[in-house]
Amino acid sequence: MSTRTLSELAQSIGAVLDGDGSRPVHGLAGLADAGPTDVSFLANPRYRAQLDATRAAGVLVAPDLRIARTDLALLRCKDPNRAWTEVIRLFAPAPAPLSPGVHPSSTLEAGAVIDPSASIGPGCHIAAGAVIGARCVLRGHVWIGRDARLGPDCDLHPRVVVHDGVAIGARCVLHPGAVLGSDGFGFEPTAKGWVKIPQCGTVVVEDDVEIGANACIDRARFGATRIGRGVKIDNLVHVAHNVVVGAGSMIIAQTGIAGSTRLGRGVILAGQVGVNGHVEIGDGARVAGQSGVTADLDGGRDYQGNPARPRVEWLRMMAQLSRGARLEERVKELERGAGAGAKDEGDA
Amino acid sequence: MSTRTLSELAQSIGAVLDGDGSRPVHGLAGLADAGPTDVSFLANPRYRAQLDATRAAGVLVAPDLRIARTDLALLRCKDPNRAWTEVIRLFAPAPAPLSPGVHPSSTLEAGAVIDPSASIGPGCHIAAGAVIGARCVLRGHVWIGRDARLGPDCDLHPRVVVHDGVAIGARCVLHPGAVLGSDGFGFEPTAKGWVKIPQCGTVVVEDDVEIGANACIDRARFGATRIGRGVKIDNLVHVAHNVVVGAGSMIIAQTGIAGSTRLGRGVILAGQVGVNGHVEIGDGARVAGQSGVTADLDGGRDYQGNPARPRVEWLRMMAQLSRGARLEERVKELERGAGAGAKDEGDA
Amino acid sequence: MSTRTLSELAQSIGAVLDGDGSRPVHGLAGLADAGPTDVSFLANPRYRAQLDATRAAGVLVAPDLRIARTDLALLRCKDPNRAWTEVIRLFAPAPAPLSPGVHPSSTLEAGAVIDPSASIGPGCHIAAGAVIGARCVLRGHVWIGRDARLGPDCDLHPRVVVHDGVAIGARCVLHPGAVLGSDGFGFEPTAKGWVKIPQCGTVVVEDDVEIGANACIDRARFGATRIGRGVKIDNLVHVAHNVVVGAGSMIIAQTGIAGSTRLGRGVILAGQVGVNGHVEIGDGARVAGQSGVTADLDGGRDYQGNPARPRVEWLRMMAQLSRGARLEERVKELERGAGAGAKDEGDA
Repeated sequence: MSTRTLSELAQSIGAVLDGDGSRPVHGLAGLADAGPTDVSFLANPRYRAQLDATRAAGVLVAPDLRIARTDLALLRCKDPNRAWTEVIRLFAPAPAPLSPGVHPSSTLEAGAVIDPSASIGPGCHIAAGAVIGARCVLRGHVWIGRDARLGPDCDLHPRVVVHDGVAIGARCVLHPGAVLGSDGFGFEPTAKGWVKIPQCGTVVVEDDVEIGANACIDRARFGATRIGRGVKIDNLVHVAHNVVVGAGSMIIAQTGIAGSTRLGRGVILAGQVGVNGHVEIGDGARVAGQSGVTADLDGGRDYQGNPARPRVEWLRMMAQLSRGARLEERVKELERGAGAGAKDEGDA
Repeated sequence: MSTRTLSELAQSIGAVLDGDGSRPVHGLAGLADAGPTDVSFLANPRYRAQLDATRAAGVLVAPDLRIARTDLALLRCKDPNRAWTEVIRLFAPAPAPLSPGVHPSSTLEAGAVIDPSASIGPGCHIAAGAVIGARCVLRGHVWIGRDARLGPDCDLHPRVVVHDGVAIGARCVLHPGAVLGSDGFGFEPTAKGWVKIPQCGTVVVEDDVEIGANACIDRARFGATRIGRGVKIDNLVHVAHNVVVGAGSMIIAQTGIAGSTRLGRGVILAGQVGVNGHVEIGDGARVAGQSGVTADLDGGRDYQGNPARPRVEWLRMMAQLSRGARLEERVKELERGAGAGAKDEGDA
Repeated sequence: MSTRTLSELAQSIGAVLDGDGSRPVHGLAGLADAGPTDVSFLANPRYRAQLDATRAAGVLVAPDLRIARTDLALLRCKDPNRAWTEVIRLFAPAPAPLSPGVHPSSTLEAGAVIDPSASIGPGCHIAAGAVIGARCVLRGHVWIGRDARLGPDCDLHPRVVVHDGVAIGARCVLHPGAVLGSDGFGFEPTAKGWVKIPQCGTVVVEDDVEIGANACIDRARFGATRIGRGVKIDNLVHVAHNVVVGAGSMIIAQTGIAGSTRLGRGVILAGQVGVNGHVEIGDGARVAGQSGVTADLDGGRDYQGNPARPRVEWLRMMAQLSRGARLEERVKELERGAGAGAKDEGDA
């Protein structure tokens, strides 16, 4: 990492410096871990108390933050979290140089078309009819199936599988072990057991999509499983056959979406959500972690629980559940009163 | 895709044509996506309304379906879903030709036995003592460990790992990234921390099994983790050491089964189910998505919830939970009455 | 497997033999599966009834176990489960011999440093600046990124990815398909959609860590995602950017931990647990399967549910939920009484 003074750093990120700007900064770290030549940041108020003890040279903070310490330089910025991203970028190591061309250990079938500006690392396989767009990077150990297509500027990390016929747009990032185009899970019950339903469709991934490590996107039974423009999918997510994910949606780790379900635009599914098949989720719906979506959801609202319902309802139900013991007590009390009353009446 | 008329298509799939049979069909699509030279289908009543607007040339429907439109040809068939599978098969592209033999980029250890009719794609490794059956296809980048065995007609997709000693039956399909024979997760707590319990068993997969992308089947601590004949396992499923899955069971995506649990025949675990270790699930039990199985379950019934209980009980509990607010209101009302009554009595 | 008599076996594991010690033992199996030349064991009381029918030559049991059968030899030992591990070790096949050196099919970039005692199997890639410690074993098809480091005696199974810059300690075991150092999942919402937040940190794995098949550990946004000494991570686990897992913790299959969360020492997360971001879990906390941790948890206690709460509270809530129908009945009864009372009063 390179060296800067706090003043230079403040200037680079458009922050107002409050303190000694001459101190040198070699790196960056969280408040608890920072040393005297590190810069740090405070964006989440839960880490506020760490300001008292941090050894950082300077800290990115909100414009109006006040602290008791006078020895700590503050870099005041409107959005410390966003400014921190700038700091990270400044100190990030230069990416490894990747030259165009095909590593000699990779295997190409006749009829694969690779843009001369693409960089194909070691141990890849590119099958017949596949098309690799301009400036694509296949880091290595990547599998590209027959007639698969990558748009320009894609970045495929080691061990990605893009199976036969899958079409990927521009600027997509596929993380290690992601599988695009595995067969959908379709079987017909017969007297002789499950019989495979052929999965003859494909997967279409639009531009600017990112797909996490070891995530799996199944090919369609027919037509296409479709991942819309700008969708971000986290690690270990499962997307079944014929699912459609609308543009700009975000699907967080270990979520699973069953077959033929359609997500609108800008839907957010938090981690470990499960969605049934043939369900429609409206634009901008947000589903809390571990929820189970069993029926259509209107757009623009927050949902939680299994079955998923509006989040306020779920919170109310959970609160009632917590009050359950007290309710039982109150009923017992009423029963005692009712019993006493009955006895009194009997006595009368 | 090839071209047919609607009449020819109806004849091929045994449907009764109702409409203009001379229209040419080039492809197939869902009702909403179909164009004027596509055939489509209606099997799930939730898509009924799409019949009014579809641009399809013809639609597979149930024998008794009535519609207002007269411009839409109907192909009436007893089971439109099953007939649709036939249509998919008719239009499916021919599979890529795979010739027998070993791709020169693959590495074979001395003592590996490969049937001459098998097709070993690029970048595979087959270790000493391994046996690859007749007509097996290893698409490429597949790892076959020492003494592992594949029965005839298996289809291994890219990047599958069949670890040392694992035995696989006939006609099995293993999807990309599936791992068979990783170590079971067994550690003994000691004063010095967790000490690994050796995992010396194996995995046995019987005939006609299909295992999904990036699914993991651990080897047994001793003996074998066993996947019964005709079992279908979806993506990202976890099966721990010494589990036994009975014939014809179906395990849907992201389900996890802990060690030494035994599933009977024809058990269905829906997505994201978790099953504790040392549990027995009876033949034909069906467990709903996201349920947590913590104790033995009798066969032939539906279960849901965590802990999983008969589904009717779970539904009743959920309904009560929804009525919780109302119950609180009723108790409050009774308390008011009781208070009023007490006052009256005091007055008397 | 080799042959021993029951007497020899009892002596090897320090058991007291009760029965015919001259019987030969060729192998080992569970009680239900054992044949007449197998030894077996009883550690979990749920399998007690299988003692009556087992065909095993002898069975490891607790010191004080009594049975009716007289034809079954018993090997009495203080801890039958631990003794069984010794038996497994005795009968385990010798591990395949792996000689030091680099398989000719592997690709090394200039500047990779590989200890001459390490064994690099087929189809690996080791990038520039990477360091492979003494006696490391890379089984094959392993990817080691730029400047990544492995301490001595690591065992990397097929298809592991250790991405650029990731640092791994001594004696770590990484199972097939595990990914260390994939990008964290960080995106900023903007008018143009999600914009990627650069993930410039790394992953640090301390000594004696084991990571399961297809598990994913993301690199930090800055600094390091840190897996402490002796941590054991099961299959398909997701650990997000900047998470810190304390020494000796155990994370069971399919659990997911969101960004910047910190686990103390000796924490146990059972299967399919989800943990929110920016949460702290205290030393020795134990969280039951499928729980959702949404807030800080004190150490040393058991938790369950979503939101996770002390397990006793959760059990109480579940019991109340089960009693819900009965509570409704009791309220109805009270309402009838109150109505009757009101009527009586009106009559008076």
